[in-house]
This record gives sequence, structure tokens and C-alpha cells, in this order.
Amino acid sequence: MTKSDRLIYLPLGGAGEIGMNAYVYGYGKPGKERLILVDIGVTFPDMDSSPGVNLIVPDIAWLETNKKRLDAIFITHAHEDHVGGLGHLWRRLGAPVYARAFTAHHARRKMEDAGQSPDEVTTVSPYPETVKAGPFTVSFLPISHSIPESSGLVIDSPAGRVIHTGDFKLDETPVLGEPFDEALWREVSKGGVKALVCDSTNVFSEHEGRSEASVKPEITKLVAGAKGMVVATTFASNIARLKTLAEAGQAAGRDVCLLGRAMQRMVAAGEATGIIGKFPATIPVEEARDLPRNKLMLIVTGSQGERRAASAQLSRGKYLGMTMKDGDMFLFSSKTIPGNERGVIRIMNAYSEMGVDIVDDSAGRYHVSGHANRPDLLRMHDIVNPEMVIPMHGEHRHLRQHTRLAIEKGRAGALLVNGMMADISGPAPDVVEYIETGRTYLDGSVQIGAMDGIVRDRIRMALNGHVTATVIMDEDDEPLGDAWVEVMGLAELGKSNAPLVEVVEGDLGQILMRMNDKTLRDDDKMEEAIRREVRRSVMDEIGKKPEVTVVISRLIG
Amino acid sequence: MTKSDRLIYLPLGGAGEIGMNAYVYGYGKPGKERLILVDIGVTFPDMDSSPGVNLIVPDIAWLETNKKRLDAIFITHAHEDHVGGLGHLWRRLGAPVYARAFTAHHARRKMEDAGQSPDEVTTVSPYPETVKAGPFTVSFLPISHSIPESSGLVIDSPAGRVIHTGDFKLDETPVLGEPFDEALWREVSKGGVKALVCDSTNVFSEHEGRSEASVKPEITKLVAGAKGMVVATTFASNIARLKTLAEAGQAAGRDVCLLGRAMQRMVAAGEATGIIGKFPATIPVEEARDLPRNKLMLIVTGSQGERRAASAQLSRGKYLGMTMKDGDMFLFSSKTIPGNERGVIRIMNAYSEMGVDIVDDSAGRYHVSGHANRPDLLRMHDIVNPEMVIPMHGEHRHLRQHTRLAIEKGRAGALLVNGMMADISGPAPDVVEYIETGRTYLDGSVQIGAMDGIVRDRIRMALNGHVTATVIMDEDDEPLGDAWVEVMGLAELGKSNAPLVEVVEGDLGQILMRMNDKTLRDDDKMEEAIRREVRRSVMDEIGKKPEVTVVISRLIG
Repeated sequence: MTKSDRLIYLPLGGAGEIGMNAYVYGYGKPGKERLILVDIGVTFPDMDSSPGVNLIVPDIAWLETNKKRLDAIFITHAHEDHVGGLGHLWRRLGAPVYARAFTAHHARRKMEDAGQSPDEVTTVSPYPETVKAGPFTVSFLPISHSIPESSGLVIDSPAGRVIHTGDFKLDETPVLGEPFDEALWREVSKGGVKALVCDSTNVFSEHEGRSEASVKPEITKLVAGAKGMVVATTFASNIARLKTLAEAGQAAGRDVCLLGRAMQRMVAAGEATGIIGKFPATIPVEEARDLPRNKLMLIVTGSQGERRAASAQLSRGKYLGMTMKDGDMFLFSSKTIPGNERGVIRIMNAYSEMGVDIVDDSAGRYHVSGHANRPDLLRMHDIVNPEMVIPMHGEHRHLRQHTRLAIEKGRAGALLVNGMMADISGPAPDVVEYIETGRTYLDGSVQIGAMDGIVRDRIRMALNGHVTATVIMDEDDEPLGDAWVEVMGLAELGKSNAPLVEVVEGDLGQILMRMNDKTLRDDDKMEEAIRREVRRSVMDEIGKKPEVTVVISRLIG
Repeated sequence: MTKSDRLIYLPLGGAGEIGMNAYVYGYGKPGKERLILVDIGVTFPDMDSSPGVNLIVPDIAWLETNKKRLDAIFITHAHEDHVGGLGHLWRRLGAPVYARAFTAHHARRKMEDAGQSPDEVTTVSPYPETVKAGPFTVSFLPISHSIPESSGLVIDSPAGRVIHTGDFKLDETPVLGEPFDEALWREVSKGGVKALVCDSTNVFSEHEGRSEASVKPEITKLVAGAKGMVVATTFASNIARLKTLAEAGQAAGRDVCLLGRAMQRMVAAGEATGIIGKFPATIPVEEARDLPRNKLMLIVTGSQGERRAASAQLSRGKYLGMTMKDGDMFLFSSKTIPGNERGVIRIMNAYSEMGVDIVDDSAGRYHVSGHANRPDLLRMHDIVNPEMVIPMHGEHRHLRQHTRLAIEKGRAGALLVNGMMADISGPAPDVVEYIETGRTYLDGSVQIGAMDGIVRDRIRMALNGHVTATVIMDEDDEPLGDAWVEVMGLAELGKSNAPLVEVVEGDLGQILMRMNDKTLRDDDKMEEAIRREVRRSVMDEIGKKPEVTVVISRLIG
């Protein structure tokens, strides 16, 4: 480490939000640091702010501009908010991708789905195996989470060691995959750690987290007591939970059937990579249809109320020949993520109408979180005992609370959100630059900026409706015939009790008649006058100010 | 009661949903019953299902058709989901309105706001005072809830007594307003009650409800320990809570200022009707601006994250000259209603960015519910000891669970949702007819049906974007010039890397050229062909299928 070299940290996504994780580390002379990227995730759209959008990824424009300096991409685990952006964004970055086997399996699929070579993804064994990437030496340190083979990263640079936790919990009995190995983490940390960059999502949960193993007896008891068909949902990627659910079904003498593509894909990935161990035998849906209901358990996708997932489809009627009936049980072995309540409640009520008993996790019996709670975070700080704590993955309020926790315990810490580039070479983070970041929308088959105004226009049409007004101008710049109005998303009748379009056409006829020659020759002026009159007229009739498209066609003499 | 007379119950809103309460009772010969309506509430729109809609009220078409049989409207309490529809719908019903003083105060405002006479609302004293309405004699029976003067209704008919609880909790120390008077409810019930029509919203809450008085010590302690400005939010209508908050501020030596119109309106209503008692003196915002922050407490509207309420405005910056700063505290003395999480979280993070400490009710210390929990519901069943229990006000799952509870305890009960007319003259409810019900949207200044397709079109534009395609046809039914395309809410560039509108116009030019004379003379066929080609072309370019408005203008020779 020469005097002018520095170690930098730059979150591009995930710091100031839950989801869309993307963290850059760099080492070298200012502005010339060699870079690595940790995770490249997605976040999900909603009707309120991003209607019609397929997926949301971080704006990586800065990284793309500096792609020549990017030596590698590391993926901590296979959740969508960590690996989901790989297929969509890799082409713009072009760096080699490293992950452990199960994660790499998913990363390769993402690459293939986007028409890129899966060979860009290299499988790495966990610590002590290392990957050299420019000035960095990186190692995958196993940690427990709600998906197999999650890892923290040990990132060594000439400026010292950084530990990036990835998403994690401290689970010593995780049902499947590696238990949290405190001794190993202490071993890795004992030479001194410059910075602990640490998951923050559960910082507001005051009690120590519970182990995945703790839900098994409860689920087993519940399934054993069921009379009709049992259907359970959880995140497909939580293979430990799938195993617990399947084993509970098996113990109750039921055949188990997995429904939903994500579910089958995950179990296949688990089998392909050998991490799944002894998973109960499952039957195909064709067989399930013929079984007595009390001999059957379905494990289905859609714990968050997703409209196209198996749980929602079953709630609307038949799905792959299966239906829910009076006396069946539906178990949400999951927590509803804030923002998804409406969809989940819709499904619950649909099942209620069918006479299905719904068991959710309001009492915390059938689900545990995959993230470290407040006491667990403090325990992690103590185990690693870093020079500084940098909270990541969380909304602003999570990062702030986590930073405060660290500082209260006498550690250096800093609240760094997306776009804040910090020099972490010294004893505490020092913000050296603000990078423009944001969200990129995957909309249909194209990528658009969240601030481009395109989705804003869609929101406006949803709120205000739309009017098309057409006028044809003759060779003498006089209106030819009447203006023509079409509406979409607006009431047909207003206060005049005449069709809205006729009223607006009448009003447009009036202002066209009064327009002076100068305006009639000027498309922009005419358009503005027509738009204003349409809005005024519609407002007067039905109390709404619509979005307006004006088409002026001029016949040329 | 002659042999052919019957007593009927018909929910038009609130049974199968939370909000929008409207329950009809009738007595008389089948099809000729004299009717009364209990409550006429609203529910609130959301972006997912009703973007741009102002408010949602029950579809009262059936009641309007039978308005000659309607003798009275009774309002149980002044919450919007019970009285909010009065102004919008009264004209279509025209029956006299009865309520207790505080509720009547609000009901009159609703009437005035809609340009109707407040004199249609009559103030009624509580039990034992009665109102005669056709064959019914109705009395307001005080009960505790989260707004003053809430009442159950004692509805007497020749077929017996019905008790309609309204929204309620069993609170013997409600801080403000009448404590739950078990002796009175026993007294009213002792002659025998045919049906208990009972609030169901909290049936999934397993523990006995807590009293409003229980939050006072916690809130007082919290405010006493605060260093900077304290800002607290709750439902404006929860005057007891406002009082608790204001008293906590006063006890901590702070001046109290109410921000937000709903807040001021509620306190004014409380003062006008004398129910508020000794409320701490408040100061106007002009004075508040000049006070030291540690001497000030604001109580503000917007506990549900409403964008225009005081809490959201403060989170975006200055509101009426007030701003939040590092070291201030913001207290949510409220629960987030499912579906409102995103808005509330947005505010929390905005405050976090300002350095404000956010205290929410995740631990249940600073808020209690206004509704009866499961054990309280069972206690109410026992107190009233009715022949049958009819659960109302709840989603399907709540009504189902509540019905089951009653049946498990050996009572008759029935799950009746909106539109199910039940004869309750006999020992158990007997569904005799299905009435068409639904939701009416207040959209701008007009009322539209939820199923009219108008809002569905708006949702489609939000998801898919919009294209206008214009073609002018000459006197010989040949296209005059090129087709003209305008887009809204769609990416400007697609896979051809040329402007989307140009690509689509080019494609339209191609199909117009290939169109046969028959199609060119037929507006419907042409429109369909153009719409299909626009969708195909846009799909090909950017992967989206837009909504399309086609305008074909024909010049007449």
C-alpha cells in the first residue's frame, strides 16, 4: 500500500432499500482503483410507483463507464435480490463471475436466459480457497441464511481485510446446509478486520433470532393433525423449509407434491449441486390428482400473493387439475413482506370462501426469519471485532439504527447509502465522492431509467384517464370538419347528462372557431390550446383532468 | 307479527370487507318489508385496484329502487367507514337520518358538503330514548370504541329484538366517553335477543383487548424523556388518544399544537358537542414556530402515510413553517392498516434521513385497537346471549372465523356476506334472496360502477402504456399520407434503435398498403387491423402490448 492508494466502498443498490443489492469495493490510486462488485440483485415493482414494470435493477451507469477497472463480480447467495440482475446487466460489465456451487448454478441459468455464456460463471469452493481479482483476494466464508450455501466474503486488500457478511443469520441448527461456525469466523477475524460490512434488515427485531430447526416440531404437529388436503407455501429458495414441510407430510403418511416452477427449479438445483441431502420422494401432479385428500400434501409457490404463482391460481380455482375444498388446510410458512399484504389477504379470503382453513404465521410458530436480529448483529460485531462497522442492506431507517448500535458500543461506523463512495483506508469511513445512482426498470424487453418520465406518464393515465383529440386542418389552415375526441378510462356521462365525448367535441368546436390565424398556423400553440380546453371541459363535466394526446393533421395543398 | 311477516337482514357493504359498512333490516311481508339502513360508509381506493378513484361507496341500487320502503338511516358512529357515504348517497335514498350528537355533528357536515340540508339529520339521546321507524323501534346503546359516542343499536321489531353492535371494544376505562357498561348491556338483553349482529374485524387477535387507559403511562414516559421536538400521529377521530398525547405533552412542560385539518375538525366537533371535557390548551402553528423545540409537541394527521396529510408533508420538508430536525422524535401512536405499509415506510425513511428518531408501535406500547378481540367477542356473545350470532364488518375470513366461534359455543350463526338477504325471524338465519351489490366509485365528480370497465382501462394503460394511431382516408377511401403515431408511457427506443413511433408508423404504412378495398371502406375492420399491427409492432420493438386508440378520419368528397 503506497501512500496515495486507498480502499473504497461504494454501494450502488441495497443501501437505503431492501433488495437490489450491489456493492463496489475498490483499491488503488483515487479515480484509478481496481474494482470488484459484490452482488447484482433486483427489486420488485409495484402498482404505486412502477406499474407495468417487470423488474427493477440498480443503475450501473457509473460501473459501466468504469468497466475496464472491474476485475470480478462475486455473488454471496442465490436470492433474487442478490443474483437476479446478473442476466440483465452482465453484458454491460463483462467481468468474470464467482460464486459457490449452488449460487453458481442459478447464476449460470440467469446468464443463459439472457443469451450469455454460462461459462462466465466460475464455481468457487469456500474458505480457505481464494480468488485473486486485481489487488483483491476474496474468499467465500459459509454462513447460515434462508437459502443454501450463503456466504460472507473475506475481502483482502493491501489496506487490510474487509468482511462483507452478505445476508445472514446465526443459526447453529439450520436443518440443511452449513451451521454458523463461530470458531471459523473468529479464526478469520483474529488477524484484525478493517471493516465489517453488515446486513441490517432485521435491526428492529429486538429478540435473538430462532433457528430453522425450531419450526419443525410445530409444522410436524400441525400437518399431523390435519384432516383434508394440506397445502403449504414458503419461499421456493428456502430449501431447508421445503425439506421440513415435506418431511412433516411424509411423517403424517402423505405423499408430497411440489407445485410451481420456482419450487421445482430450486429442488432440482439442490439435487444437481448435491446440497439437498435426503429429500423425501415427491410425486408428480398427475399422480396427486388421484390421491385421497388426506393422503396428500402440496408445497406451492406464491407465499407473497404473487398473482401467477400456484397459491394464487389455486385460490382462483383449478390449477393443474388440483382444487382446494372445504376442510383443506393452507399454511403460510412465511412472513408477508411489507407491501405484499393486499395480495396475500386476497388469497386468504378466496380460500376462506372455499371453506379452507388458513394457518398463517401471526403467532411465529411456522416461520423464522433468515436475517440476524439486533442481538445477533451485536454478537457478529463482537465476533469479528472490526475497526469499523458499515451497515448495508436495509432502508435508511435500518442503516441508521444499525450505525447507532455500533457507535453506542464504541465502534466506528457510518451510515453510507447508495452512491456514497467512502474511503475506508483510515480508522473510519470518509465519504470522498457522490456517484449518481438510481433504479433501472426492465420494462417489456427494454431498460428505462426510473426518472425518465415514462412510468410517470403511465401513473398519470391511471390516475387521470386519457383523451385523444384529433383535428384535421385544410390547405388554408382552417379546421376541416369537427374535432374528434376519444376517451379511455373516463366516465361516459357527466353533469350535462350527454356523452362526455360529445360535450368535449362541442367545446373544442367553439375554441377552434375563435382561434386566430396565427394560432391556427402554429401546431404547438394549437396543441396547447386544445389540450387546455380538453382538460377544462372534462374537469367541468366529470371533475377529472385527463392526460391528453393532441393530433393535428394538416392537408397539404 | 302475522304469520307471513318476516324480519330480514341484508348487508350491502362491510360483510366481506373491512370498511364501507351498510346494513339493511326489514320487517313485513316478503318483498314489502319496511326497511331501515344502519350506517352508510366509505372505503378507500388504492393504486392496485382503483387508481385515480376518490372514494368508494357501496352500490345501493337495490335500496334506491326500494327507497319508498326505507323509513330511516341510523349511524352508529362517526368513522368514515360508517358515515362517510352519507353526503354522496343520501340524495338517492331520501330517508331521515338519526345519530347521537357527536356523530350527528359529522353527519350534518357531510350533508352540507354535498349541498344537502343538515336538517335531515336528527340528534338522538342514548338508550332508553327510542326512535320509531316504521315497524321498528330503535335505540342507541353506548359502547366503547376509538371515537366518542359510538353506539350499538337496539332494534326492536314485532319479530323480536336485534342488537347491532356497531364497531366496539370492551373498555371500562376509555379515557374519554362512556365506559363499557356491562350491566346496561345485560339489562337490555335480559328479555331475550333474537340476533346479535356483531363486529368481526379483530377475531384473529387471540388476547383480550387492552384499555385505552393502558397507553397513557407509556406515552407520558416517552414524551417526558424526549430531547427535541416531539411529533405524534394517530387517527384524528381518536379523541381519547389526542387527549392522552396532549396531556403527555403538557406534563412534559410542552406547548401542544394540532396540525392537519382533520385533527382540528375533530377537536372542534368534540368541543361543539361537549364530549371532549378538559382538553389541554393548544397553540396555533404561528406561535409554535417561535418556541424552542424542547418546549413543543405537535399532534399531526397522517398515521396511515396519506400523501397529503401533515406527517407526510413534514417528511418532505416544510409544512406551515414547521420542519423536523436531527434529534426530534416522531411517534406513530397507531397501527398501520394492511395495504398502507408502503406509504408509512416511505415517511419513516424520510424522517430517518432527517435524523429524526421514529417510535412506532411494533411493541404495542403506544397504541391499542378500538375493536374487540376474540375473547372480547365471546364475552359479548355471553352478555347478550342471543338466539343467533351474525358476524358483520370483516373480510370473509373474519366472518368465517367469527361464525365458527359462535357455532363452537353452541349458538346458531351464519356467515352472511354482502347481498345475502336472510330471514332471521326463525331460530337461525335463512338466506332467502341474493341481491346484486358491489362498489360504486366516486371518480372526480361522478359515480361509476366498479365493474363498468372505466377503471380497468386506466389500470391497463398503467401496465401497458398507450398508443394513438391516426389515419386520414381520402374521398376515394385511400389513405391520405402516412399513418401518425403518438405514444404515452412507452420507451422511446426499442430494439431497432430507431424511435419507436417511427418504427410503428413504418409498420402501419406497410399494412395500409396491403389492405384490400373492402377493409379500407370498413372503419371497424380497419381499426381492428391497425390496433393489431400497433400491438405487434410495439411488442416486437420493446416487448409491451399497449392500449391503442385508433382514429380514422374520412374526408368526404
